[in-house]
Amino acid sequence: MLLALYLIGITAEAMTGALAAGRLKMDLFGVVMIATVTAFGGGSVRDILLGHYPLTWIAHPEYLLLTTLAALLTTWIAPLMSRLRGLFLALDALGLIAFTVIGAKVALGMGLEAPVAALAGLITGMFGGVIRDLLCNRVPLVFQKELYAVVSLGAAVLYLLLLYWLVPDWLAVLVTLVAGFTVRMLAIRFQWHLPRFEYNVPDA
Amino acid sequence: MLLALYLIGITAEAMTGALAAGRLKMDLFGVVMIATVTAFGGGSVRDILLGHYPLTWIAHPEYLLLTTLAALLTTWIAPLMSRLRGLFLALDALGLIAFTVIGAKVALGMGLEAPVAALAGLITGMFGGVIRDLLCNRVPLVFQKELYAVVSLGAAVLYLLLLYWLVPDWLAVLVTLVAGFTVRMLAIRFQWHLPRFEYNVPDA
Amino acid sequence: MLLALYLIGITAEAMTGALAAGRLKMDLFGVVMIATVTAFGGGSVRDILLGHYPLTWIAHPEYLLLTTLAALLTTWIAPLMSRLRGLFLALDALGLIAFTVIGAKVALGMGLEAPVAALAGLITGMFGGVIRDLLCNRVPLVFQKELYAVVSLGAAVLYLLLLYWLVPDWLAVLVTLVAGFTVRMLAIRFQWHLPRFEYNVPDA
Repeated sequence: MLLALYLIGITAEAMTGALAAGRLKMDLFGVVMIATVTAFGGGSVRDILLGHYPLTWIAHPEYLLLTTLAALLTTWIAPLMSRLRGLFLALDALGLIAFTVIGAKVALGMGLEAPVAALAGLITGMFGGVIRDLLCNRVPLVFQKELYAVVSLGAAVLYLLLLYWLVPDWLAVLVTLVAGFTVRMLAIRFQWHLPRFEYNVPDA
Repeated sequence: MLLALYLIGITAEAMTGALAAGRLKMDLFGVVMIATVTAFGGGSVRDILLGHYPLTWIAHPEYLLLTTLAALLTTWIAPLMSRLRGLFLALDALGLIAFTVIGAKVALGMGLEAPVAALAGLITGMFGGVIRDLLCNRVPLVFQKELYAVVSLGAAVLYLLLLYWLVPDWLAVLVTLVAGFTVRMLAIRFQWHLPRFEYNVPDA
Repeated sequence: MLLALYLIGITAEAMTGALAAGRLKMDLFGVVMIATVTAFGGGSVRDILLGHYPLTWIAHPEYLLLTTLAALLTTWIAPLMSRLRGLFLALDALGLIAFTVIGAKVALGMGLEAPVAALAGLITGMFGGVIRDLLCNRVPLVFQKELYAVVSLGAAVLYLLLLYWLVPDWLAVLVTLVAGFTVRMLAIRFQWHLPRFEYNVPDA
């Protein structure tokens, strides 16, 4: 089940990358590159920070075909994207929680402590989008949008708590997915967001 | 002593990150993220480049609490920051030199040569700020401001020369801290800077 | 031969970095830093992604002298750069193909499969420029310009095919260099580019 959700996740992330590239009128190669980096960026940053080799796309280069196809398909169906927006956001939310759970699992599998595992989940969930936005020369959306990174961190913490309370893994994954997906969808629907910090003194 | 200075350094760096996030009106989660990445970015880049695992904040996740608190405190005392500017710059300078010495020590501890150790010091000192500015979508200040990166590199070279001349480590650290701190403070006070290079032909 | 071309490549990349820094009126230290990161960025990203340690410039810190000199020289001869443009683009193209071949060789030497080796070649060729443009706060040129990254990927695939067809390595390198260089020069001359993808719906 996690593998299926992972594949949904990289596909959705690749599509967000392709759309961001299209906003900058990139050529098709740029579109595929941004999509690929977005899809695998979160997991790659996690693996580099943890020293967890080989990276997923190096062990499974066939996944790159999937994200390449998703990117090219996106350029084709882009005119429909605004109508598919609800579906797309739902897939993206599922992918976010799947990435988060997978990230936490990787850290646990390396024998790391729970706080590091929670961070590994968060990093897996959010850094694909951060790198996409860096490459597209804008402030990463995840630092500004309605609850996205917080949902990822919350899902990681919930998953780890469930394991700690000896809930079987498959059930902990399922509960985390349902809870995380629900909160993310509610956050989009009602535009929940955290308080902002404003500081207007320019840098020296 | 170095540990105390390291903790001062990550606190000061976290505060610069929080203020930069506030200038972009980020939410509190974004503020904590930028602060944390700024505080641990330099050491993490150094460790990844050198292949030095585990990273500091993975071995000591409790340090993340310190930077999180520093970030939240910053959002609270921000109105006072302009009056605390002198103190803040002094702590930041101490942290810069402490980061530099620690970075050089890590490389020496891995048996690397002096030029690589000097670079490891520089990278530790400056890359937190570089990543902060990347995430905040601006040209990194350290490439443009009055002497900052140069002070870090100079401090690293001085420290390595002192060790080479068989000065005991504690004394080499102390002399480097005093000298580096003094030069940095003088550079801020008198706005010392290196000559600039201007090139006005646009890219093809 | 590859070493000579590698040295040409890091020199040409360092010069593009120095010019980009000059467009932002950076100080000399910033110029040298951007030049160095541009020259070694592609190989470093490849090595970090593959877990291939130590990085080139850590094993050979003397190469840093070359890129530092190239950066300083660039600030001196900048007024001539527009007249030297043809020569400069030719050296840059040679360096791109050399980087690509070297990147593919590194991956093959680690026992990785051909698709990963092709990507390693592409990453080595293009990521120096990507990091340069990130640090200079602009959308990476390689995602937008006439064929650059595509030439690198094509050269990597050609090289790997030649090896697969049991062409001796020296000949495969030579053929790849000539073919890649020729296509790159033609792409610049005739402004070949891939179709673009435009998407104008702003992000939510």
